[in-house]
Amino acid sequence: MVKDMTKSQSVSIRQRTCLQAMLLILAFCLSAHGQAPSRTRTELFFPDLPGSVTLKCDFHMHTVFSDGLVWPTVRVAEAWMEGLDAISITDHIEYNPHTNDIPKHLGRAYEIAKPGADALGLILIRGMEITRGEPPGHWNALFVTNVNELDTPDYHDAVRLAAAQDAFIFWNHPGWKQSNNKSVWYQEQGEALEKGYLQGLEVVNGGDYDAIVHGWCVEKKLTMMGDSDVHDPMGMKVDFAHGDHRPMTLVLARERSAEGIKEALRARRTVIYHKNQLLGEAQYLEPLFQGSIQILNPEPRLKGKGRALVQIHNKSSLDFELVLKEKHADISAPKKLTLPANKTSIMEISALTNTLDEQKTIPLSYSVTNLKTAPKKSLDTQLSLRPIFSSK
Amino acid sequence: MVKDMTKSQSVSIRQRTCLQAMLLILAFCLSAHGQAPSRTRTELFFPDLPGSVTLKCDFHMHTVFSDGLVWPTVRVAEAWMEGLDAISITDHIEYNPHTNDIPKHLGRAYEIAKPGADALGLILIRGMEITRGEPPGHWNALFVTNVNELDTPDYHDAVRLAAAQDAFIFWNHPGWKQSNNKSVWYQEQGEALEKGYLQGLEVVNGGDYDAIVHGWCVEKKLTMMGDSDVHDPMGMKVDFAHGDHRPMTLVLARERSAEGIKEALRARRTVIYHKNQLLGEAQYLEPLFQGSIQILNPEPRLKGKGRALVQIHNKSSLDFELVLKEKHADISAPKKLTLPANKTSIMEISALTNTLDEQKTIPLSYSVTNLKTAPKKSLDTQLSLRPIFSSK
Amino acid sequence: MVKDMTKSQSVSIRQRTCLQAMLLILAFCLSAHGQAPSRTRTELFFPDLPGSVTLKCDFHMHTVFSDGLVWPTVRVAEAWMEGLDAISITDHIEYNPHTNDIPKHLGRAYEIAKPGADALGLILIRGMEITRGEPPGHWNALFVTNVNELDTPDYHDAVRLAAAQDAFIFWNHPGWKQSNNKSVWYQEQGEALEKGYLQGLEVVNGGDYDAIVHGWCVEKKLTMMGDSDVHDPMGMKVDFAHGDHRPMTLVLARERSAEGIKEALRARRTVIYHKNQLLGEAQYLEPLFQGSIQILNPEPRLKGKGRALVQIHNKSSLDFELVLKEKHADISAPKKLTLPANKTSIMEISALTNTLDEQKTIPLSYSVTNLKTAPKKSLDTQLSLRPIFSSK
Amino acid sequence: MVKDMTKSQSVSIRQRTCLQAMLLILAFCLSAHGQAPSRTRTELFFPDLPGSVTLKCDFHMHTVFSDGLVWPTVRVAEAWMEGLDAISITDHIEYNPHTNDIPKHLGRAYEIAKPGADALGLILIRGMEITRGEPPGHWNALFVTNVNELDTPDYHDAVRLAAAQDAFIFWNHPGWKQSNNKSVWYQEQGEALEKGYLQGLEVVNGGDYDAIVHGWCVEKKLTMMGDSDVHDPMGMKVDFAHGDHRPMTLVLARERSAEGIKEALRARRTVIYHKNQLLGEAQYLEPLFQGSIQILNPEPRLKGKGRALVQIHNKSSLDFELVLKEKHADISAPKKLTLPANKTSIMEISALTNTLDEQKTIPLSYSVTNLKTAPKKSLDTQLSLRPIFSSK
Repeated sequence: MVKDMTKSQSVSIRQRTCLQAMLLILAFCLSAHGQAPSRTRTELFFPDLPGSVTLKCDFHMHTVFSDGLVWPTVRVAEAWMEGLDAISITDHIEYNPHTNDIPKHLGRAYEIAKPGADALGLILIRGMEITRGEPPGHWNALFVTNVNELDTPDYHDAVRLAAAQDAFIFWNHPGWKQSNNKSVWYQEQGEALEKGYLQGLEVVNGGDYDAIVHGWCVEKKLTMMGDSDVHDPMGMKVDFAHGDHRPMTLVLARERSAEGIKEALRARRTVIYHKNQLLGEAQYLEPLFQGSIQILNPEPRLKGKGRALVQIHNKSSLDFELVLKEKHADISAPKKLTLPANKTSIMEISALTNTLDEQKTIPLSYSVTNLKTAPKKSLDTQLSLRPIFSSK
Repeated sequence: MVKDMTKSQSVSIRQRTCLQAMLLILAFCLSAHGQAPSRTRTELFFPDLPGSVTLKCDFHMHTVFSDGLVWPTVRVAEAWMEGLDAISITDHIEYNPHTNDIPKHLGRAYEIAKPGADALGLILIRGMEITRGEPPGHWNALFVTNVNELDTPDYHDAVRLAAAQDAFIFWNHPGWKQSNNKSVWYQEQGEALEKGYLQGLEVVNGGDYDAIVHGWCVEKKLTMMGDSDVHDPMGMKVDFAHGDHRPMTLVLARERSAEGIKEALRARRTVIYHKNQLLGEAQYLEPLFQGSIQILNPEPRLKGKGRALVQIHNKSSLDFELVLKEKHADISAPKKLTLPANKTSIMEISALTNTLDEQKTIPLSYSVTNLKTAPKKSLDTQLSLRPIFSSK
Repeated sequence: MVKDMTKSQSVSIRQRTCLQAMLLILAFCLSAHGQAPSRTRTELFFPDLPGSVTLKCDFHMHTVFSDGLVWPTVRVAEAWMEGLDAISITDHIEYNPHTNDIPKHLGRAYEIAKPGADALGLILIRGMEITRGEPPGHWNALFVTNVNELDTPDYHDAVRLAAAQDAFIFWNHPGWKQSNNKSVWYQEQGEALEKGYLQGLEVVNGGDYDAIVHGWCVEKKLTMMGDSDVHDPMGMKVDFAHGDHRPMTLVLARERSAEGIKEALRARRTVIYHKNQLLGEAQYLEPLFQGSIQILNPEPRLKGKGRALVQIHNKSSLDFELVLKEKHADISAPKKLTLPANKTSIMEISALTNTLDEQKTIPLSYSVTNLKTAPKKSLDTQLSLRPIFSSK
Repeated sequence: MVKDMTKSQSVSIRQRTCLQAMLLILAFCLSAHGQAPSRTRTELFFPDLPGSVTLKCDFHMHTVFSDGLVWPTVRVAEAWMEGLDAISITDHIEYNPHTNDIPKHLGRAYEIAKPGADALGLILIRGMEITRGEPPGHWNALFVTNVNELDTPDYHDAVRLAAAQDAFIFWNHPGWKQSNNKSVWYQEQGEALEKGYLQGLEVVNGGDYDAIVHGWCVEKKLTMMGDSDVHDPMGMKVDFAHGDHRPMTLVLARERSAEGIKEALRARRTVIYHKNQLLGEAQYLEPLFQGSIQILNPEPRLKGKGRALVQIHNKSSLDFELVLKEKHADISAPKKLTLPANKTSIMEISALTNTLDEQKTIPLSYSVTNLKTAPKKSLDTQLSLRPIFSSK
């Protein structure tokens, strides 16, 4: 079938057509289960931290207006379905393989996508990918205001002008086209950092995590970014049927707005959500973890050397993998503990002595092995219980 | 990241670029499970009938070159992933809402999609949708040879010229824009049928089955078509995570080729695969059913009035729903029986008398309620057993 | 492997052995995903109503101590894994087909199951099934205090004595062994009702819903019960991989305790959770529905005859199926609306006139077709919006 | 509900009751999807090797007759549902924690399970677990003929008598109760091996793989066994919803019978199916792999330095993980390749030179990293192509 064919005057029609393309996506049709997948949003849960909301974002993706394979409205619909709060469509400025069919029109994807994003309450950030050979490679500029200005022969100008537009600039997939995909910090990056142009690095691009880049972020105090860089329909790259998700940058923003995101990116308040991992600073990972779990019976009774079953609910969208860091003198606790997403799990504990007759706070020291504060460094945390011991 | 940027002379580059777009889709990247969904094909199983192969086809879909939302290569990749053998991209000839961005270029989608289809062994059939108001509505013309010729002011000319190109022509979603979606057989259709132009009807379009149109196919001896008419990425319309599939036309072709498909469409050798149903003539549904199931122990022993468990394997991709049509004098059999796809199921039987001492062929009469030979008419078939009865 | 073999004195050992059987179930072992399914609980969500907690209960199940096929601790583990709050193991008093192997021991299943239930915080209610031919058929007696007393030749005595123990008594699967499974209200039931013995009816038993019994509950003001009556391991009857669940009785209890449940059963504050349906009185279904959904943007802007996308989140474990009851004068709303469990869905609305310039409360009248207040009678409810209309 | 209550004379009734317990399990009831999971069997596919059938077996499990938690018929139903060909119920001879409720009755589980196994065509092998402290630990004796005889004070007698009954004897979970679960080869095992009593070792028990024991099997030429040792309902230990399976011993038997299995166990023709791995000798793993895959287009065309997409179908129930062992001079092939179970996958190849004009057999050397011929040793194999090269 087709969209309504009535034609009218040009500007408003263009906007209306874009919204209709959105509504077309949301139209109720094929599914045997009675509802097209495009009409339902899977909410992700990560707790808000004090003073901020945790926004699920993806700042790197393409459409047919550069070398992507979907119309811009598809990016909005996908993001809404997958539970995101904000995206940026970052088509290449200089690389436009479809120009035989689609005349170059920088920023057009944003225009087409905007009405649908507004209708769905998704934050759409104007962005572009400055695309040169390595060095300096590819850089995303978010919050740009004049896209055409950046299409200059010399990349120095492009980056400088993006910075002058108050863009947030980060270096994409630093390992790309390097020998063995090993990221190299070129002089070009050093200069851009010094001038304050370069503010973030893509630690995760698509399915790939880059430990070298992760280390640079920690060391150089750059914002950690995790993006999909998707070109295809998302369902071709992410196995949703098995519960997979696209990589995301969790932005801890003071408010749910483009401005809020910009401020947080500048202040490096991001955490990367990659496969079943979170990558970020301990100051953010710790409250994200503690805000996700709830110990349902924190005051179990332990008679003699008896056992108790402590129940822990994990309301986040992430499984947590815990390993006991050090044994406690009074109670034995599991060496390994998995807390699956959105489930309640059991931690079996037992008293090590049968001489106690008191209630006592017991902080159990665990590492959460899939929360990474630096390459190969897990978050250390505590599960705090207050068992009631009785000697008999 | 981007595709390789080397440029060279135009014709071959165009072809190469198209294949690269295909390879890009197949590239190994995002998935947490180690493999992008785009790299695996889920094979569907429906048995071949004597003298023909059963080809899974979809002859109605759109791309950005009319009002669809994906690049043509996406249609090829989706079809391959979903186990199809053949598709036709049937962009609208007269309806081109993206022309502000993509200059009208009839047949361009085919050109772009062809190299990838060849690389994957998918049969790509050149087709277009002749798109007018109702009546006469929308018609698909498959196997067209000169697309531009069909872009004429008068639809009579378009249909006549398509027929002159030896196209296979069918009427799409007849209920569309009719009052209450109730399909109406207009004079225009009658004329086209009489002239031999109109050869098939879309009984299933997207998620919708049209019983009126099904009846017309039976009565007027027209080819039954079931198509997706997809505009979005397929994963937005079909809930693959719950095992859903797009609607398909199963073509019983003498050979796996475009020519084989054309001959079979003309000869009305099609069966529609819609949700968990097959729609078609009994002469095709009967061998499709019998070729899908295997009774693993057809000669069970029945002692006295004892019971036996008969195991039936269904190797097809369809669950079969059976209802007993008439009771048998010698054995009792289940009133209802479900044979899930790709599983072995149990049919519990028992002897009704304890006086038999022989082996005997017992044909059990069942209706397969999800195989439809006409609207509301199920396929009647038999499950044939040879129990060994003993009186004690 | 085996449980610890140390033996000691009898009473405490018995208790300890039972708990160990529980711990054995919870032991970490087989799964390729790193965690045995038995260690995780899937929480179900139904909102609490004012003044009550909504407890998920199953009051009918069997173990090897009558004709069931599992050890009693299995019933506790299953219930915990599936998110239940309370169960009763109701082995048959008079039907004991395993006595060749397991000497009859009424109430033994409760003793074995209790330590594990306590350790997991599951409410275990002492119950038994009084098991006679029809009429009067099978009756469950919950909260019994002396089980052996009920093992009498005359069922009148059994029921009377159960009532004297202050049991809550209900009639199980009334249609069982009736002609065509059609439930018949026998004189025996009438007598028991008159004497105040009979207080509830099983509207749902296992997979079967009984509309006649549902009608009786409405008409005679009896407590509606929905139970599994499971004999096998639950995973053999319920297809958890497809998101199915056992039938449950939702008890709206003043407190989370056996006493709380007893009071609520007596006061008929129950709702049955059967497949994707809730069955109960409108006074309970209405707040269960309204407490489950949240309209995320209840004040959409409608410009002229424009459209808006209203997002509705359903935090319950049930999909809701809505049908528009009557059209509204000012806005058009979907005729059908599905709100899948734990997802956010879209309701597309549009203004019918372009003359309004105000904010206005619009109550949209919907029937929720899978919430049943009586056989074939759906809950009528309203979705309340406050759109901001502007004429241009 | 209950099973039919009619009683008759004792011996046959016992058999009948057992079959009825089976039929009860298979009864059609709870599922929202219209069919209880217990009524469908998921077939596993591993190819038969020349001269043998590949039987899926589990030779270690428990019921309520020792320390298990299910009735014996449940073990039969589970095995049938999961696609097994043969099982042995191996209750402990000396460890009977349920004797307060179930008087000790060695071999009773077999009697109860047998009629159902026969009705379903499942091979049931009489077995018991000789259960002593370490050393010598626990040993399974399969094909025993007189169970009571083995209940002797001295384990030497038990093992000797089992051997005299021509039992197949293997040592269970050697690492159990050892320091850090590290398996120790005691003098007791050495003696039993020397006498020809000890014939196999459990390399896999439940979720645990033991590399030390794997090494012993290779070195001492003992039969490799992989068993579930399940005590609970299987669904509590295996996450079927995520596609997991119990560990199995694949027996390469000359015929599908208990005798066939016995001969093959003696001849060490077994392969262990554990998580997503197969463990066994290269002489068996190689044909299992090659018999599972089919290269759909083994003769691709390669023009110049062009690329081709080779499609490989894996019809087995196992994903194969391949790593390129050595590069080929003429074509480049993927360093890593995943062939998911029951899917078709793509292997992208390209010509390394553009000077060839011939068809040529190219054996690509891969290691299959999840097929293990010894601890940490993968199967080396070849994917053989015959590309048609053309220089232009």
